Amino acid sequence: KPTFDPKEHQHLRYNPLRDSWVLVSAHRMKRPWKGQVEKPPEDNTPRHDPHNPLCPGSVRAHGEVNPEYDSTFMFDNDFPALQPDAPDPGSDHHPLFQSKAARGVCKVMCFHPWSDITLPLMQPAEIRKVIDKWADLIVELGAEYTWVQIFENKGAMMGCSNPHPHCQVWASNFLPNEAALAERCQRDFLQKHGEPLLVQYARMEAQAQERVVVENKHWLVVVPYWATWPFQTPSPRRHSDTFRLEGYCLASIMKRLLTKYDKLFEVSFPYSMGWHGAPTGSHLQEDMSHWQLHAHYYPPLLRSATIRKFMVGYEMLANEQRDLTPEQAAEQLRKLGEEHYKMKKT
Amino acid sequence: KPTFDPKEHQHLRYNPLRDSWVLVSAHRMKRPWKGQVEKPPEDNTPRHDPHNPLCPGSVRAHGEVNPEYDSTFMFDNDFPALQPDAPDPGSDHHPLFQSKAARGVCKVMCFHPWSDITLPLMQPAEIRKVIDKWADLIVELGAEYTWVQIFENKGAMMGCSNPHPHCQVWASNFLPNEAALAERCQRDFLQKHGEPLLVQYARMEAQAQERVVVENKHWLVVVPYWATWPFQTPSPRRHSDTFRLEGYCLASIMKRLLTKYDKLFEVSFPYSMGWHGAPTGSHLQEDMSHWQLHAHYYPPLLRSATIRKFMVGYEMLANEQRDLTPEQAAEQLRKLGEEHYKMKKT
Ligand SMILES: O=P(O)(O)O[C@H]1O[C@H](CO)[C@@H](O)[C@H](O)[C@H]1O
Ligand SMILES: O=P(O)(O)O[C@H]1O[C@H](CO)[C@@H](O)[C@H](O)[C@H]1O
Repeated sequence: KPTFDPKEHQHLRYNPLRDSWVLVSAHRMKRPWKGQVEKPPEDNTPRHDPHNPLCPGSVRAHGEVNPEYDSTFMFDNDFPALQPDAPDPGSDHHPLFQSKAARGVCKVMCFHPWSDITLPLMQPAEIRKVIDKWADLIVELGAEYTWVQIFENKGAMMGCSNPHPHCQVWASNFLPNEAALAERCQRDFLQKHGEPLLVQYARMEAQAQERVVVENKHWLVVVPYWATWPFQTPSPRRHSDTFRLEGYCLASIMKRLLTKYDKLFEVSFPYSMGWHGAPTGSHLQEDMSHWQLHAHYYPPLLRSATIRKFMVGYEMLANEQRDLTPEQAAEQLRKLGEEHYKMKKT
Repeated sequence: KPTFDPKEHQHLRYNPLRDSWVLVSAHRMKRPWKGQVEKPPEDNTPRHDPHNPLCPGSVRAHGEVNPEYDSTFMFDNDFPALQPDAPDPGSDHHPLFQSKAARGVCKVMCFHPWSDITLPLMQPAEIRKVIDKWADLIVELGAEYTWVQIFENKGAMMGCSNPHPHCQVWASNFLPNEAALAERCQRDFLQKHGEPLLVQYARMEAQAQERVVVENKHWLVVVPYWATWPFQTPSPRRHSDTFRLEGYCLASIMKRLLTKYDKLFEVSFPYSMGWHGAPTGSHLQEDMSHWQLHAHYYPPLLRSATIRKFMVGYEMLANEQRDLTPEQAAEQLRKLGEEHYKMKKT
């Protein structure tokens, strides 16, 4: 019988942040792809478009006019999924027909006045301003709400409906499913092992180096041992319970990671990303030493700028599955240079 | 304060089959859509293409030749994610680096010799043959494997890489995440409430009618109270612990449901679907009276043939969210006629 080789032999890996398993079937990359091919993102976004509601000076859906902003710019989402005053559906429910009140706010934050720029092409000082706003938001909205979800959908492939560089913030009076899972897993781990899950994990990955993509004094980016998406990454190396970010270090590591992402297939890399920090609101009084603030990047591309991983069929109904090992993905990213591919060409 | 209206006021609903919540924000349908528009599926698939490896008489990837089949046809996936003989990754693992053996088989089943036909356009007797094969497969593969996942990815949008009508079967020596969840939830429910979850649910939905799409003697199709995907549906009304299908009744209800799906946006409706039956293999000796065999259909389209729901950003990082109520979706499907839109036109 051959000895086990993770690149050749399918196996399951455990995700301790979600208490679930991922099926790693790396030999699947050998299969020819005859399915849907994506449109590569368009590269002709104008720097300023007066009809784009995210641009400085534009008129938005309900008639508001954006200021002539020259850095970041935040406003309330004109079509929010969460509103602060939704009435309660009541509480006397059959176990099969349970509902619960959901209240919150949705905001949009533009990263930059230009529509034709993305984070990896921004200056570290400009990225730093985005990060500072994130930190402010967590404090501000976290005073009232239980969970503040900061996320960025980048690229049309990830449902992003506007090319202007921006993120969203949805704050809610409830712990979303994913947050509740991360809360439980980190709490149990600390109790059982005496060290926060992600602190121990970062220490071990920094030592092993096998899955590291980029690192600096405060931050470590790895393709986690249990990654689901082909080139998924998080995360920080120091213990930090809420959104107290080491600003410049984070700006620099984000720029380096995103530059590599763009370089991988020479395309503005699509992804959904977001931050998971300790619950806020009524949880602010609790001991949160089990929590480690971290980011998740979930990029869909698998083989090229136009061939993505589909999480469908088996993945939706049974189990998430990936087509290359996290170690292979980390190596591909690690060996890329740190100059943006668009810079090289000019 | 206004009284609660599920169509206007966002709220959470509980999914008792997955022990999780879905955010229902139906007022979001008012937002204009400026994001990615999908290519409508091509309608020019030739009935027979000698280069399509799923067609009768074709040569497949590793040189095997398909028979000139005239009904269903099953073969081993030429690029299987699960193989029967993968070596064990070993068992002495750090809690943060756990892996587990995964063994299994992957099969493909063609529904029909023609590439330009789909289930709703097939005769009930032909659909019945597909169902009988499913039942056989569960018995055959279930003798050895813990979980037999039958699923169909339909349409390029759902990662389907071949237009020929077919499904896949992946059988494994482990309970996948989704199976483990469904197992636990149904077991707990029976223990707590004295009746199988889905039997009670089907009874109550048949009575209420509000979310029913189509029904017959043995089967009931509803958009569940906790549906995540816009037009998601299951399910059966009678207690049945494994894949003992009421064949003709099921063939008929599938044809009716899929005809309505196609009619909704006048397009061959993309989806991932699959069956959840009781665990098999070593579980065959256990009492499975808490399990109710059921199908899940997860169709991505939301507004039209070209505008889909993106489960990205907030959904991936925090909580699944839907843009219309299950009641609205059920009504839209219910009021459609039961003649296939392609038939009408000829
Ligand atoms: O097996 P196929 O059809 O080539 O591949 C498709 O279905 C599989 C099972 O759901 C997924 O893992 C793949 O990402 C998808 O493209
Ligand atoms: O808010 P947007 O960018 O219009 O919409 C996008 O992000 C949302 C949050 O992840 C999703 O619910 C939508 O399906 C997606 O299209």
